[in-house]
Amino acid sequence: MTKLNVQLLMTGNELMTGDIVDSNSAFIANEFKNIGVTITRKITVADDLAILTAEISQISQQSDLLIINGGLGPTTDDLTAQALASAANLPIEEHPNALEHLTTWCAKRNAKLSAANLKQALLPKGCDIVANSIGSAVGFSLTINNCLIICTPGVPKELKLMVRDEITPTVKNLIGDSSQIFTKRMQVFGYGESGLQQLISDKLPQWPEQLEIGFRASMPLLELKVTYSSAFPSDERDLWLAQLESLLEHHIVHHITNRPISLAEQVNQLLSSNNLTLTTAESCTGGLIASQITQVSGASQNFHAGFVTYSNDMKSKLLNVNKTTLEEYGAVSEHTVIEMLKGALAISGAELGIAVSGIAGPTGGTDDKPVGTVWIAWGNHTHLNTVECLIPGTRWYFQQAVCAITLDLIRRFILNIKDTPRYLVDRAPKHIK
Amino acid sequence: MTKLNVQLLMTGNELMTGDIVDSNSAFIANEFKNIGVTITRKITVADDLAILTAEISQISQQSDLLIINGGLGPTTDDLTAQALASAANLPIEEHPNALEHLTTWCAKRNAKLSAANLKQALLPKGCDIVANSIGSAVGFSLTINNCLIICTPGVPKELKLMVRDEITPTVKNLIGDSSQIFTKRMQVFGYGESGLQQLISDKLPQWPEQLEIGFRASMPLLELKVTYSSAFPSDERDLWLAQLESLLEHHIVHHITNRPISLAEQVNQLLSSNNLTLTTAESCTGGLIASQITQVSGASQNFHAGFVTYSNDMKSKLLNVNKTTLEEYGAVSEHTVIEMLKGALAISGAELGIAVSGIAGPTGGTDDKPVGTVWIAWGNHTHLNTVECLIPGTRWYFQQAVCAITLDLIRRFILNIKDTPRYLVDRAPKHIK
Repeated sequence: MTKLNVQLLMTGNELMTGDIVDSNSAFIANEFKNIGVTITRKITVADDLAILTAEISQISQQSDLLIINGGLGPTTDDLTAQALASAANLPIEEHPNALEHLTTWCAKRNAKLSAANLKQALLPKGCDIVANSIGSAVGFSLTINNCLIICTPGVPKELKLMVRDEITPTVKNLIGDSSQIFTKRMQVFGYGESGLQQLISDKLPQWPEQLEIGFRASMPLLELKVTYSSAFPSDERDLWLAQLESLLEHHIVHHITNRPISLAEQVNQLLSSNNLTLTTAESCTGGLIASQITQVSGASQNFHAGFVTYSNDMKSKLLNVNKTTLEEYGAVSEHTVIEMLKGALAISGAELGIAVSGIAGPTGGTDDKPVGTVWIAWGNHTHLNTVECLIPGTRWYFQQAVCAITLDLIRRFILNIKDTPRYLVDRAPKHIK
Repeated sequence: MTKLNVQLLMTGNELMTGDIVDSNSAFIANEFKNIGVTITRKITVADDLAILTAEISQISQQSDLLIINGGLGPTTDDLTAQALASAANLPIEEHPNALEHLTTWCAKRNAKLSAANLKQALLPKGCDIVANSIGSAVGFSLTINNCLIICTPGVPKELKLMVRDEITPTVKNLIGDSSQIFTKRMQVFGYGESGLQQLISDKLPQWPEQLEIGFRASMPLLELKVTYSSAFPSDERDLWLAQLESLLEHHIVHHITNRPISLAEQVNQLLSSNNLTLTTAESCTGGLIASQITQVSGASQNFHAGFVTYSNDMKSKLLNVNKTTLEEYGAVSEHTVIEMLKGALAISGAELGIAVSGIAGPTGGTDDKPVGTVWIAWGNHTHLNTVECLIPGTRWYFQQAVCAITLDLIRRFILNIKDTPRYLVDRAPKHIK
């Protein structure tokens, strides 16, 4: 494959004032990385004809490929076509294909083709059109000084489609790569990025670099991505992927085929498919678990009642927790969460339940039960599990983590998974039951 | 004031691969905009010594001020000091002030000064130190070709403090501006950005442009910022600000002196200072209101119990809602939310309560009660208010909006505010009671 010098030229006053953060260039870089192409240099300038023209001229002398992003719109600020024409020493003229695109685009929207729109058909003479499947502004390309220059729209969703459908294939041609790139994605719970990286290098040290591993944190889940080319032998690839999956086991929450899903969504699906209902008895999470479950459409089939019992009084009054239990063992204790769970199950009539009581902090900790201590009970009337975890960190982090852990524990309970999850090994080594 | 040519040079492999989106440059641009300085050009390159050196040399010949961001860390990838020294034709040497900073920094953390850390004290001979109040890497500056070059850390929070405390004053000196810039910030609930912009131009058409108005959306609140120079007459300024405040009235939730606060935080503060407790009876929000209240540290004093009653059965069983009420008026009705509220108040013993029942969607709507319909009841035993709102949108948006509205309604209730808030005028014109 040919190694290219690739540069990006981003244009827009709003990029220079800091009014918007540029995510387009990261998107382009990421897409190009997937086909093995790296960006050498990125220039960002305001909408200024002289500056743009000078940059285009200069970059065209240094590089093989220049992607210009922005400045294709209908307003007088949008100067990319003009700047490219100046740099190439070409006149601007109405491009018949661009005009046709605009006419169709307006007709579909029952809109009249305005003078402002018509400006978008005025392009450097002889340039090629790059299709924009959703926006009014076509992309266009031209070669100057042996540098292929492709002009793209600033609207992120238009850019994304154009890069994926039009530009990436062109760049693959440029580098002489006829392979196809595939990505396998899965959602993992219980490992952070560095922990998972470490696990893979420890347990699968020979992992081939052609199966490129990537991560995307989307708390509390981690998205694990394996990107590979069709040029890599498929039987070898399948063997490695199988090893990876058996290494992660039930920490894989979901294999992404369509879109990522949340833990709460996964739990709702399992409840629905097993025709089960769930209830929650929450102290330290204060309704967060219930709220995550009910953020999923259709949750009303699976979740009828939840209890937020913040005070001891309310634990007794709403959930029938024995006052002597609270006095003897305290609110944050195994006995209390067991009684909370039993109370919630009995009152709600749900088959499954989660109960939590802990110290979210930042105050309220003791030597014996520091901030971050939480007792969790989960299960059904006949199989009731408990665990004590220590989750230090901010109040917010504690609540989110307890919520995610309980959702994963109930997921594992429904799926009848017996292994101890990684997070309990770390957080509750003495208490696994 | 002198007009400067200012350029940014961003360095980092992670910026070129698209693994992270650069928000630092937008931050710098925004801060500079506040003092009337615009960025002319921004270059982003990978951590490559030759490329960095060439860019620094070239930019120093074009511009008056160059801010370099990134590459100050302890690893071998971090090449900014070396590149600057090369461009300036100066040796690298241990800078005594940088060493002192590192020593103190390590001592505070009980850490040993490592060889990697020590690298951060190796700077171009004769450069000036720019203080980093929180991180290990000091900034540094040097003038080449009459261009002042300031090197800053890539860690966003370190950069922010350095720009605010050290660099902005330096740049103000450069442009010969002795005025001071102040910002008044307030949090508003009930207006979107465009609505508020429209309101101000309608009602205060003569608003002076020297009092620059800016917005920052932080759903569900909108942060309204008025930025002005000390050069603007203070009596005139105070008059305009007073007019703005009286225009917005009780839609101003909080005047920011220290940090923005959430609606739930505001409600908790009011409950504490009035020695009141609150309870919630939630159907369509499924625990979200309780969870937001209890995300605030100290909420246990103000919130003892919350009820998530998703099914009709549970509304009756947990909150004593009459079965005939549910049959006759339905779950989403004024009668039902009143009984939910009364039940929650009676059982929990709280002085104040919020009850909601609605159709979060996307399914479950009818012609009579479309998706987005919600009945809200709030108040205490003797003063009980109700309203029906229509909040179309996604399930997520509906739940968040209902939650924010109820928190604002209870805030207004505690403060004894009688005006009708803007959002009820829009969302519930027929039902304001």
